[in-house]
Amino acid sequence: MAYDLIIIGGGPAGISAGIYAARKKINTLLICRDFVGQAGKAYLVENYPGFEEIKGPELMEKFKNHLKKFQIDINEQDEVSKVLKKKDRSFEIITSQRDRFISKAVIVASGRDPRPLEVPGEKKFLGKGVSYCTTCDAPLFQGKDVAVIGGGNAGFMAARELSKLCPKVYILHHGLKVSADEFEQERIKRLKNVKVLVFAETLEIKGNKFVESLVYKDLKTKKKKTLKIQGVFVQIGSIPATGFIKGLVEFSKKDEIKINHKTCETKTPGLFAAGDVTDVDYKQIAVAVGQGVIAALSAYEYLQK
Amino acid sequence: MAYDLIIIGGGPAGISAGIYAARKKINTLLICRDFVGQAGKAYLVENYPGFEEIKGPELMEKFKNHLKKFQIDINEQDEVSKVLKKKDRSFEIITSQRDRFISKAVIVASGRDPRPLEVPGEKKFLGKGVSYCTTCDAPLFQGKDVAVIGGGNAGFMAARELSKLCPKVYILHHGLKVSADEFEQERIKRLKNVKVLVFAETLEIKGNKFVESLVYKDLKTKKKKTLKIQGVFVQIGSIPATGFIKGLVEFSKKDEIKINHKTCETKTPGLFAAGDVTDVDYKQIAVAVGQGVIAALSAYEYLQK
Repeated sequence: MAYDLIIIGGGPAGISAGIYAARKKINTLLICRDFVGQAGKAYLVENYPGFEEIKGPELMEKFKNHLKKFQIDINEQDEVSKVLKKKDRSFEIITSQRDRFISKAVIVASGRDPRPLEVPGEKKFLGKGVSYCTTCDAPLFQGKDVAVIGGGNAGFMAARELSKLCPKVYILHHGLKVSADEFEQERIKRLKNVKVLVFAETLEIKGNKFVESLVYKDLKTKKKKTLKIQGVFVQIGSIPATGFIKGLVEFSKKDEIKINHKTCETKTPGLFAAGDVTDVDYKQIAVAVGQGVIAALSAYEYLQK
Repeated sequence: MAYDLIIIGGGPAGISAGIYAARKKINTLLICRDFVGQAGKAYLVENYPGFEEIKGPELMEKFKNHLKKFQIDINEQDEVSKVLKKKDRSFEIITSQRDRFISKAVIVASGRDPRPLEVPGEKKFLGKGVSYCTTCDAPLFQGKDVAVIGGGNAGFMAARELSKLCPKVYILHHGLKVSADEFEQERIKRLKNVKVLVFAETLEIKGNKFVESLVYKDLKTKKKKTLKIQGVFVQIGSIPATGFIKGLVEFSKKDEIKINHKTCETKTPGLFAAGDVTDVDYKQIAVAVGQGVIAALSAYEYLQK
């Protein structure tokens, strides 16, 4: 199938680009695994202007419904595995389901994937006790003890959410000082069933069919310790999802796609990028939304030429 | 009074900057004439992601309430008349009510004023048939025939709003092709009481006490023509509101404040700008909101130094 524009990603940036592309009547296809993004994994969003307080998944539902009001082709539950530049300056997009599409312009809004811990047991127990998304999976751990890896805001918010369901929640942080905001730290201090372990390096996730324990090294005493837990929530940041686009764009030191921030153009004409996958300084929903709009309108201008 | 940050403007960019500044606990003052902006003048907003369809004033009300949830000083019903740079690198802000404030950083989000037609009769009949804001004034024209000047989205949306109240609505566009989105054009085509006149140059607005007619030149036939109408809505764009900041910033050819689009910095350290007052290519609510967030977070980093 041939399109004028293909948008890759179903987070705030991709959806916003889709809304604007549809309003401009650009013949558009949006390809995404799902309509979740980083926003959909947020427990509570309090800083997207217009919504004083809204659950992440609820905001994403609103975004998605807004997009679906317009006529635009959507390939959900699929992922782009490769973008190729053709001789006639158009792009060929190949998906993991082996679909092939041709497009005159492309917007990459594929966002970020959770950063893996890279310890033994992590891959093996994915979906069997190991999770990267509290909002998605917390209810499965009702009544079970769990560990959250990561002492940033995401880790602290995950622990707060889990503390409502789980008898005991551990937060493990590699460094000596957690990096969560003071505000979040104070909230956690008030919860009796959450214990923060600093200077704790996760070594292994163990179990039989499902997760049964976590081994960590106490970096002060240099001793190995074991926590009996049934769930591990990994919250140590994220990496840009750019595997399919190598060669066509420039990358920053953080492996993010370098863009012209006025136009969202990449180094390849016709190829734009928006949202958390780019080298934008602030990974915020409102910023991603603004960039999605810019990318769509820049793509529109490109297509007019 | 002394602040760490002063935000100038109460539109989407200023409010978003305010929300983020408050969440970062920056000692902030926001100064604005009102919380209207260009968004508050929109009949219907259908492209701010999250709200499929919302009246402009209603969206601004939501933005304002979101801001007021946080602790931040607000000087409403005031305007900045001058921003001065002091020797110690701080800024002095003087308002039209002759208040003086000192601030370490400033975000200019003063938006735009409507662009006048500059034809005879326009000034004379302001408030007597001539208006720049359909949302504000449309109800006054119930049962009357009106003309909208401008064939962009704003003009088409204004015409659509007026078509519900007025027996006859003319859209006059100077060029040969209107610039409204296809989507908007199709909507207008379905309305029997709206007539689009292209290649039509408005020459004069005539009347006695109130507007009675409009004279335009048909640029194809070179002939003057007269429309009997009682209202003229001027929708030919806007000009940036920057009178108070000359000398401290660079301007684009369109008199917009030049910024670094990655950080919203101007050429003066500590002075940031966001939204429609800047040289951003797309004057969209979502883009202004994104920039407001970037400006606030950049100001926060500046203040940390």
